[in-house]
Amino acid sequence: MTAPRPTPPSGGRVEMIHGAGGKAMAELIASIFAPALANPYLAQGNDQAALPIPAGGRLVFSTDGAVVSPLFFPGGDIGKLAVNGTVNDLAMAGATPLYLSTSFIIEEGFPLADLDRIARSIGAAARAAGVAVVTGDTKVVERGKADGLFIATAGIGVVPAGLELSGDRARPGDRVILSGSVGDHGVAILSQRENLSFATDLESDCAALVPLVAAMVAAAGPALRLMRDPTRGGLAATLNELARQSGVGMALEEAAIPVKPAVSAVCELLGLDPLTIANEGKLVAVVAPEAAETLLAAMRAHPLGAAAAIVGTVVEDPRRLVRMRTAFGGERIVDWLAGEQLPRIC
Amino acid sequence: MTAPRPTPPSGGRVEMIHGAGGKAMAELIASIFAPALANPYLAQGNDQAALPIPAGGRLVFSTDGAVVSPLFFPGGDIGKLAVNGTVNDLAMAGATPLYLSTSFIIEEGFPLADLDRIARSIGAAARAAGVAVVTGDTKVVERGKADGLFIATAGIGVVPAGLELSGDRARPGDRVILSGSVGDHGVAILSQRENLSFATDLESDCAALVPLVAAMVAAAGPALRLMRDPTRGGLAATLNELARQSGVGMALEEAAIPVKPAVSAVCELLGLDPLTIANEGKLVAVVAPEAAETLLAAMRAHPLGAAAAIVGTVVEDPRRLVRMRTAFGGERIVDWLAGEQLPRIC
Ligand SMILES: Nc1ncnc2c1ncn2[C@@H]1O[C@H](COP(=O)(O)OP(=O)(O)OP(=O)(O)O)[C@@H](O)[C@H]1O
Ligand SMILES: Nc1ncnc2c1ncn2[C@@H]1O[C@H](COP(=O)(O)OP(=O)(O)OP(=O)(O)O)[C@@H](O)[C@H]1O
Ligand SMILES: [Mg+2]
Ligand SMILES: [Mg+2]
Ligand SMILES: [Mg+2]
Ligand SMILES: [Mg+2]
Ligand SMILES: [Mg+2]
Ligand SMILES: [Mg+2]
Repeated sequence: MTAPRPTPPSGGRVEMIHGAGGKAMAELIASIFAPALANPYLAQGNDQAALPIPAGGRLVFSTDGAVVSPLFFPGGDIGKLAVNGTVNDLAMAGATPLYLSTSFIIEEGFPLADLDRIARSIGAAARAAGVAVVTGDTKVVERGKADGLFIATAGIGVVPAGLELSGDRARPGDRVILSGSVGDHGVAILSQRENLSFATDLESDCAALVPLVAAMVAAAGPALRLMRDPTRGGLAATLNELARQSGVGMALEEAAIPVKPAVSAVCELLGLDPLTIANEGKLVAVVAPEAAETLLAAMRAHPLGAAAAIVGTVVEDPRRLVRMRTAFGGERIVDWLAGEQLPRIC
Repeated sequence: MTAPRPTPPSGGRVEMIHGAGGKAMAELIASIFAPALANPYLAQGNDQAALPIPAGGRLVFSTDGAVVSPLFFPGGDIGKLAVNGTVNDLAMAGATPLYLSTSFIIEEGFPLADLDRIARSIGAAARAAGVAVVTGDTKVVERGKADGLFIATAGIGVVPAGLELSGDRARPGDRVILSGSVGDHGVAILSQRENLSFATDLESDCAALVPLVAAMVAAAGPALRLMRDPTRGGLAATLNELARQSGVGMALEEAAIPVKPAVSAVCELLGLDPLTIANEGKLVAVVAPEAAETLLAAMRAHPLGAAAAIVGTVVEDPRRLVRMRTAFGGERIVDWLAGEQLPRIC
């Protein structure tokens, strides 16, 4: 970082000049971002971070924009979400996430104290996930031209040689394992927005899945076909994507899918299906049948997979449908979100 | 990409459902982004792109958010700008840019035809720069919560072993070379906004500097100390950053700095200093004195450096000032942008 004396971010607000590329921007970066994210790569102070070439089989690269509203919610904030969103998309390939970039788009008038809190949350989430935020960008747009703050992160990870996880690898007979309860993130955000006081204990599940993934890869080896995090569109969208990509169908057991009582209650009240609600700290794995119990045991032994369950089976189906035996013994097709909209929960 | 039948983007507008993670989003990606960006990595259709590990000395990683207004301007658009911004930050390390990510934040109601045009502009700019857009993200925010469209890109490049360019390497006696005229980008945008009809011939200089950089590295070898693109804050901010980072001063010759007549005219009218205006296709290089003429000749032989000029010298200065001998023979200190603000030109 190239900036002069840092000034503490008390009381002030972000102004247009903070995005103009001059002294005020350098001071903002030096006083808020640099200390929160501190690492030797960011400290190089050039237009790009120079990094050692990682040893392994492949690089992986991913990006996610975070536009959640409100910016602070039970269990997290936009900064934590922006880190874990990209970290998890890397981890789903079995990768070790290494480096992140952050692009801030800030509305004029945004409180510096909130920016500081969010920057520190990014730093903490990055440390927890074992990644370094090595480069960034800061833009400011006029009042009314954004909704407080948007953050786009991108990330680089490395996959060990020989590990091949991809959405096209599900085969009939494989088991579908879910790492825990669905709907927590989306419902936690919605409850805040709708002021549903009875759901105040509910927290977003926002978390980095890196250590759970490491345990899973170690336990299942090549029997692990693929992993995916059911974020926007929820479990329903993710399973439909995977069915299409692998050219298979899925047969689910509703009774096996963990849903917290508060999530069920809010969904009933608002007329939502928990299977279409976003999660930010869950994953779906598809595994060869002979390794399913071993994998499940390894997942349950980890805090991030304590409530893991086998929720279904991959089946042959030229129509690539996701079907579910309901708790009442009937059957329904689990389609991906069509009419419904749950904007701005991630 | 996992989406069903692409639908052509005629007439319609982006709706909230296009960001909800379901079928509508998959169709938007399949009909607009996938064809515009087509490459085998993006086509993997997973949550991350898997890439071969590049051979070389170091990885470089950078990000830039594009928030320019208007979205289309003489010489480019937000898509071209978003690609070249990140590509150039990689190139300034002497890197070959390889892969880009794109994160779209779209305002509800945005015309699909404009989105399509911008996606195709991104594809064209990426091909021109020799990079592949391998992964992306698409979010939609409610009407009034963004200004049409914001795009954040991140990029990965590779630097050959042995090539060390960094902002802290300028030494007293080194020459400062500028690749061409300053102020074109910012003034082109401002002229649009202020409706300055006499400046309608002026175009943004938005371009990928990759081939110019390759010619420069080949010509100057280890005598090349550093490169930087004078974007926000203009030449003034970049030289002050470099002076601070290297612990030196700079002595400039105003008469040597190329400024187009239309740029001078607009700056005079609006009371702006061309040295503080953003450029999007220019670079500053610092080079050991014995290689300066060789490097200059190599730059001038390339279309992107046809108007290159030696504009100053690195000097000892404990105060790290950038001083300029003016065209009238006086001297002034070139400070970086303080009070001025030119919002949303990049
Ligand atoms: N939000 C942020 N968090 C961490 N580092 C940041 C952030 N914003 C900028 N930086 C760092 O500050 C330095 C200057 O960034 P800046 O965006 O000015 O560079 P640039 O991309 O070359 O310029 P421009 O964005 O005008 O093209 C870089 O090292 C960058 O990584
Ligand atoms: N604007 C875009 N341009 C190119 N590809 C895109 C774009 N948006 C999304 N994609 C691609 O579409 C696929 C699905 O993206 P999506 O964002 O839904 O995945 P995700 O990050 O796992 O989900 P979420 O964003 O809800 O966490 C990915 O392969 C992604 O690279
Ligand atoms: Mg994601
Ligand atoms: Mg994902
Ligand atoms: Mg930048
Ligand atoms: Mg830049
Ligand atoms: Mg730059
Ligand atoms: Mg995404």
